[in-house]
Amino acid sequence: MRVVTLAGGVGGAKLAHGLQLALAAVEQQVVVNTADDLEVHGLLVMPDHDTVLYTLAGLADRDQGWGLAGDTFAAAGMLERYGAATWFRLGDGDLATHVLRSERVRAGVRLTEACRSLQAALGVPGPILPMCDEPVRTRVLSDDGWLDFQEYFVHRHQAPEVRELRFEGIAAARPTAEVAAAIAEADAIVLAPSNPLVSLGPILAVPGLRGLLDDARARGVPVVAVSPIVGGRALRGPADRMLASLGHESSALGVARLYAGLLDAFVLDRADAALGPPVEALGMRALVTDTVMGDDADRARLAREVIDLAGDPASRR
Amino acid sequence: MRVVTLAGGVGGAKLAHGLQLALAAVEQQVVVNTADDLEVHGLLVMPDHDTVLYTLAGLADRDQGWGLAGDTFAAAGMLERYGAATWFRLGDGDLATHVLRSERVRAGVRLTEACRSLQAALGVPGPILPMCDEPVRTRVLSDDGWLDFQEYFVHRHQAPEVRELRFEGIAAARPTAEVAAAIAEADAIVLAPSNPLVSLGPILAVPGLRGLLDDARARGVPVVAVSPIVGGRALRGPADRMLASLGHESSALGVARLYAGLLDAFVLDRADAALGPPVEALGMRALVTDTVMGDDADRARLAREVIDLAGDPASRR
Repeated sequence: MRVVTLAGGVGGAKLAHGLQLALAAVEQQVVVNTADDLEVHGLLVMPDHDTVLYTLAGLADRDQGWGLAGDTFAAAGMLERYGAATWFRLGDGDLATHVLRSERVRAGVRLTEACRSLQAALGVPGPILPMCDEPVRTRVLSDDGWLDFQEYFVHRHQAPEVRELRFEGIAAARPTAEVAAAIAEADAIVLAPSNPLVSLGPILAVPGLRGLLDDARARGVPVVAVSPIVGGRALRGPADRMLASLGHESSALGVARLYAGLLDAFVLDRADAALGPPVEALGMRALVTDTVMGDDADRARLAREVIDLAGDPASRR
Repeated sequence: MRVVTLAGGVGGAKLAHGLQLALAAVEQQVVVNTADDLEVHGLLVMPDHDTVLYTLAGLADRDQGWGLAGDTFAAAGMLERYGAATWFRLGDGDLATHVLRSERVRAGVRLTEACRSLQAALGVPGPILPMCDEPVRTRVLSDDGWLDFQEYFVHRHQAPEVRELRFEGIAAARPTAEVAAAIAEADAIVLAPSNPLVSLGPILAVPGLRGLLDDARARGVPVVAVSPIVGGRALRGPADRMLASLGHESSALGVARLYAGLLDAFVLDRADAALGPPVEALGMRALVTDTVMGDDADRARLAREVIDLAGDPASRR
């Protein structure tokens, strides 16, 4: 069974990891958000890609939610001595990833290929595909003006209210040949429990990508999403406040509404069981289960439920 | 008293450190070899500059002779996992130096300025000046063909015999305004105990640099060198074998001959006292003393003797 998972950072990485852990028969390809990529000290840094990469390679730091487990910070210490801005903290081992990938991209290697060689070296079985090779950058309009995404997310700790989002460069972006092929050959498509606005939002905004998903659904390929909002709160990050400040309902139902017309089924947490009927009223099946992924067993169990849901003929349109 | 020290790596760094330690009244500017610079993983790495930088900042690893004391190697470990070539070993803190400087040079900052901002941040009192802003790269003809310098020096552990040297890019190089001003305003010029062929050789080969030294001597500014060869052996590195394979005498006298016409005085180790008269026959004063710099006290004492020698009216031509 070939599964394509659309993912942002931590939540997406966890479910992708569950799919990798649970199901030997699943060939997974992850399409990852690149709109929160940034340049740090002249190096290309890809937070979502690398969270998925390290998670699928079994190297992720599970406590802090970014970077490599057990990494050291000698370079950050020297950068501080040099007076460089260090609010975007990079571990020493992590730095190697950015240095190597930046070298390759600067030498003209496509982003997709530069990333794939790193994934293969770390033993990740299926590709983690950047949503596009072109640079796309999320910008956030806050009460303090327009901010780069990581300036908002990391430097300002998501404190400013978000008034508007822009994905700079999105008009020139295209799904890569790898993304198009993965979706064209998929038996199921999973939207991971990632921020629907700034993680899956940019992926879905790549011109042509929704068309690829629609074509897949027209062929009977189920598209299933897992809510990143549980009990009205984001498990991690600012999705709940961002939904509210941008005029959406800050709930699993609000997320399902954003995906209406795109999905065959939607997975909600037990805490939101009451939202099952209104979600189904949007024209998608609703599955109520435990969606909070604490450990590997949780990841694998949720992954299995998602795959069962996708495989159930009642989930096909 | 304004001193200009021409230096390569470890030996040059030690004497420059001695001058900084010993003499509060000395304003030192170091002109450093850049011909053994290289690109590692797309980053500009400047081994001689950084050995001098870390030594003068009190941060050098004195045992291994390169890098930062107490540095860690997490990035090197990841680079190895990624299958990257890691024979040129970079510490984590050291990597920060290369990342920041590469960013600035790529952004169009002159090499001299990019280096100076790092030096200032680490509290180095006087400038460490790249010999030129243009890229110059030493190439080594060995029995295995032409090699990049660090390929010969680090990767092959200086094992191949050196048949010929080339300084690629040297014809287009020019002394920077900073180097020209430092020499024009110097009260004494010191050639550190560095490899005369591949450390001081490239500096002296920058078109126009010998003319600046000649002009200084014509104004009565003493030029003094310290032998890097003691008892026929290089204290560090391949200078002794390289002198021999390139047709020079592998001794302090052989070094003095390379500098003939350029120097007012030459400092030899006690082990080479017998070479004093033939050195003086080359038209320079010879000072015999202890030249092996074990600790800071040795560095400072030798620096004081060099300055006294330079300040002695009998050393002026």
